[in-house]
Amino acid sequence: MSVTAILRIECPDQKGLISRVTDFIQRNNGNIVALDQYTDTYEKHFFMRVEWEVEGFAIERDQIGPAFQYAIATPCQMNWQLDFSDQKLRMCIMVSKMSHCLYDLLARYHAGELNVEIPLIIGNHDCMQIVADQFGIPFHLIKITKENKAEQEQLQMQLLKDNNVDFVVLARYMQILSLDFIRSYPNRIINIHHSTLPAFVGAKPYHQAYTRGVKLIGATGHYVTEDLDAGPIIEQDIIRVTHKDTPETMVLKGMDVEKIVLARAVEAHVNRKTIVWNNKTIVFS
Amino acid sequence: MSVTAILRIECPDQKGLISRVTDFIQRNNGNIVALDQYTDTYEKHFFMRVEWEVEGFAIERDQIGPAFQYAIATPCQMNWQLDFSDQKLRMCIMVSKMSHCLYDLLARYHAGELNVEIPLIIGNHDCMQIVADQFGIPFHLIKITKENKAEQEQLQMQLLKDNNVDFVVLARYMQILSLDFIRSYPNRIINIHHSTLPAFVGAKPYHQAYTRGVKLIGATGHYVTEDLDAGPIIEQDIIRVTHKDTPETMVLKGMDVEKIVLARAVEAHVNRKTIVWNNKTIVFS
Amino acid sequence: MSVTAILRIECPDQKGLISRVTDFIQRNNGNIVALDQYTDTYEKHFFMRVEWEVEGFAIERDQIGPAFQYAIATPCQMNWQLDFSDQKLRMCIMVSKMSHCLYDLLARYHAGELNVEIPLIIGNHDCMQIVADQFGIPFHLIKITKENKAEQEQLQMQLLKDNNVDFVVLARYMQILSLDFIRSYPNRIINIHHSTLPAFVGAKPYHQAYTRGVKLIGATGHYVTEDLDAGPIIEQDIIRVTHKDTPETMVLKGMDVEKIVLARAVEAHVNRKTIVWNNKTIVFS
Amino acid sequence: MSVTAILRIECPDQKGLISRVTDFIQRNNGNIVALDQYTDTYEKHFFMRVEWEVEGFAIERDQIGPAFQYAIATPCQMNWQLDFSDQKLRMCIMVSKMSHCLYDLLARYHAGELNVEIPLIIGNHDCMQIVADQFGIPFHLIKITKENKAEQEQLQMQLLKDNNVDFVVLARYMQILSLDFIRSYPNRIINIHHSTLPAFVGAKPYHQAYTRGVKLIGATGHYVTEDLDAGPIIEQDIIRVTHKDTPETMVLKGMDVEKIVLARAVEAHVNRKTIVWNNKTIVFS
Repeated sequence: MSVTAILRIECPDQKGLISRVTDFIQRNNGNIVALDQYTDTYEKHFFMRVEWEVEGFAIERDQIGPAFQYAIATPCQMNWQLDFSDQKLRMCIMVSKMSHCLYDLLARYHAGELNVEIPLIIGNHDCMQIVADQFGIPFHLIKITKENKAEQEQLQMQLLKDNNVDFVVLARYMQILSLDFIRSYPNRIINIHHSTLPAFVGAKPYHQAYTRGVKLIGATGHYVTEDLDAGPIIEQDIIRVTHKDTPETMVLKGMDVEKIVLARAVEAHVNRKTIVWNNKTIVFS
Repeated sequence: MSVTAILRIECPDQKGLISRVTDFIQRNNGNIVALDQYTDTYEKHFFMRVEWEVEGFAIERDQIGPAFQYAIATPCQMNWQLDFSDQKLRMCIMVSKMSHCLYDLLARYHAGELNVEIPLIIGNHDCMQIVADQFGIPFHLIKITKENKAEQEQLQMQLLKDNNVDFVVLARYMQILSLDFIRSYPNRIINIHHSTLPAFVGAKPYHQAYTRGVKLIGATGHYVTEDLDAGPIIEQDIIRVTHKDTPETMVLKGMDVEKIVLARAVEAHVNRKTIVWNNKTIVFS
Repeated sequence: MSVTAILRIECPDQKGLISRVTDFIQRNNGNIVALDQYTDTYEKHFFMRVEWEVEGFAIERDQIGPAFQYAIATPCQMNWQLDFSDQKLRMCIMVSKMSHCLYDLLARYHAGELNVEIPLIIGNHDCMQIVADQFGIPFHLIKITKENKAEQEQLQMQLLKDNNVDFVVLARYMQILSLDFIRSYPNRIINIHHSTLPAFVGAKPYHQAYTRGVKLIGATGHYVTEDLDAGPIIEQDIIRVTHKDTPETMVLKGMDVEKIVLARAVEAHVNRKTIVWNNKTIVFS
Repeated sequence: MSVTAILRIECPDQKGLISRVTDFIQRNNGNIVALDQYTDTYEKHFFMRVEWEVEGFAIERDQIGPAFQYAIATPCQMNWQLDFSDQKLRMCIMVSKMSHCLYDLLARYHAGELNVEIPLIIGNHDCMQIVADQFGIPFHLIKITKENKAEQEQLQMQLLKDNNVDFVVLARYMQILSLDFIRSYPNRIINIHHSTLPAFVGAKPYHQAYTRGVKLIGATGHYVTEDLDAGPIIEQDIIRVTHKDTPETMVLKGMDVEKIVLARAVEAHVNRKTIVWNNKTIVFS
């Protein structure tokens, strides 16, 4: 795969946006390999993701942004983000006691399927140390209690900074992050919740599902915001259950959905396919 | 298909229940064609559905119940229900303005796939009169306003009685039934709710889903109880949506799920596959 | 909804295609409401669907095609098709003895969800006459035997011509069409096959599925080509079965999938979302 | 969980089978915790799985089999198999170059979710050595060429014997086993094929799927028999693809389905939920 530039845009809808953007790329000899756009007709807002080959493009990499800002973004009041496919995002995984999501992410990473660096794993219990060790990734045990939470989070955030972490994945991390932490990584913390939100917010969703007698359970990958389990949803999926399922068998069945949904959400983020707007996630194809 | 007896049982769990029931059938020369059982190990409660051929059975149809009560049910403290596959349940469909669920049920009925009689359809608007006419089924228009609701429900219930209705299907009937009505048909009113409950209870679930930015929408077929949208779930299913979907396209996509889920719920009820217990529905295979 | 122009394009891939097309629309004051494109990177071929509002567009409806041909299509070697959303396609449904797909299509049509005219239904048995009558649509019984097939097909094709039929839907029509018929409606005959092709080509796929012991059955909506069950696939879906299912229960379960898959395939065609190329169907979102 | 006895039975159908089996357990003071049965009404054949608690059962573990044979199995011409839930099956995983299925199985094993011992992993390439090492499981590299296949298989089978292997999982092992090998482990070799069989038998199913233009891809977990990709199916599942997918993206998407389907098939086998009959797999619930 050749290196590509990936441009994500959002702005108030107006005529000629696609034409202007594609013309900018075309005039500079860019070969578009993917383009997806979406107009929110209720809110009259425009979203676009376009990807083109860097090789042969008439503008130098570090000049594309300024040129685009001047020629297109400013006149059209666009918010935009430009990335390059050879820039690997640095991902921190945070875990508690369960291994299924962690193993799934690390297996993809190890097989070269996940285009990230993983400089560290943070756990609030020591059980996942052994998994981190299997993959040779530094594991930091930062135990959390009610009393020490604030200072321990400072330690966590210092670690993220020291490791130049771009985004955080909560792989069944059973702690609620403080507002301070969340605000430091806006739309850059991905959580997996073990229900199809907004059903069964909060603790023990499988037990809630069992009590309610549902016929489907599921999982939701979402960006973390200040409202618990209410952030922009990236991906969801379900699995069928019956009256025979107990909370215990639901936990087991649900784990398969959780890990796949989390991986898809992470992949969408890593491949720069998402834009968050109005507490929703546009996930480009 | 030969005529079968269908026995549904629930009782406190105890040793030897399956053996006693199957022995009762076997000793009387019954040929079991289906058996499914389930034990709620939390509540230590036993559930069973067994179906055997009536032909050649040593006990007369109208004596099977009393014989079973005496020999097995009384000593084991069982609640049970005995039905025969040649007894067609009489189903009333209640509708408002949307036709998709109504058409789907009537098409199955017309093709002989749904083992019921449909003596009447009740609507609170006249739009579905034409559909009822297409199938030659009596349509009763009973308009509901805040003021006349109580007396109009009396009319509805009188119609159900006059037509010996066994159970009621709310095929996107947009009125909330009174407690009086609901209590008259315990576990015999099936509703289709256009979300995967318990998500999006109440009005306009697709608009709620749109606002929340979910990636899945769905439908729930459930028995109606006194708590709105909180009755025992019979069946659920989902369909994938994206950020491109509006409330309007969700409504359209959702209709396909609604009609299939409702039909499956109705079929489970009609084929005597359900037992309601603890606000959950056991759905035997 | 305002009237839109829908342009579908395919041509050898080259730089600047999106820019040229969108610029053409923009320069003529068109407001794009949907755009989707796709490049087959193996075959280096480009596909695009773009939809814009007719109102306010600077070119008259009947001049858009010629103008586009001259300005863009000829220099870029494009094949293209232009439609307008207020042009209702005329659809003929062909049936044999089963009603589920027919009812499903007619119910959508009756509810105004399917943007077509249905001037006639053709059956090779008389069983579906009653369904056609329910909806007031002319039904033509054209019985087919080995001996009379050729001449009866001439009758069918004459009926299609007389009714200005744009495309044909085989709603479980159990006859194989002749090459002559197929060639008269290239990519304009949609069939529903009751398996997930290419599994279980030909007759009695559910019996084949039963014999093979599969755990999933399904259906395929596809354009009919000269090779039996080998045409371009538009849509597929599945439903789970178990060892308990017989060919008979598979037939029943499968009908739900068949009708939904067929309806989705028809909707894709009707909404001008498909392009056939290399025996595959691009289905734009 | 207390230890359970698991009895699987198949025999010609006849009256009173369930009653006789459950009576045998009941008379000996057994508490049934699960019972599932199935009658193939076409072939008039009966299948049953029953599980009861060993503690308190009146017959010693090693005498249950002989007692059952004498009292029930011989008079009813039953084939049966008796297992105990505390007997861990010994599983050998065979791999080539891909890690996703291997990691998934090992992660479950490591988390204690898969009730097996894994004494060894056999690879025909050395790439998976590193994964085996991560989990501390002996890895045996046995390279296969056309010339040495027969003798190398002898090595493999000797390893299986030396390690008392009960069953073999082909976790994307890209070699075809000889008849000799297959016959040594009847219904005890589980393969994952990367298509929904019987579609796309043989090599490169995703490339076949791409060429055919399908809208769904999937995977099949099945027992290996002498006919390639034609053995009894245990589990299947699918994932949706579009025209945008290439063989490469299908491979990536398919891996998620493959690993989940394989794990479910292995779990069904490990939990003694399967009976193979007539080249089909009964999978009890």
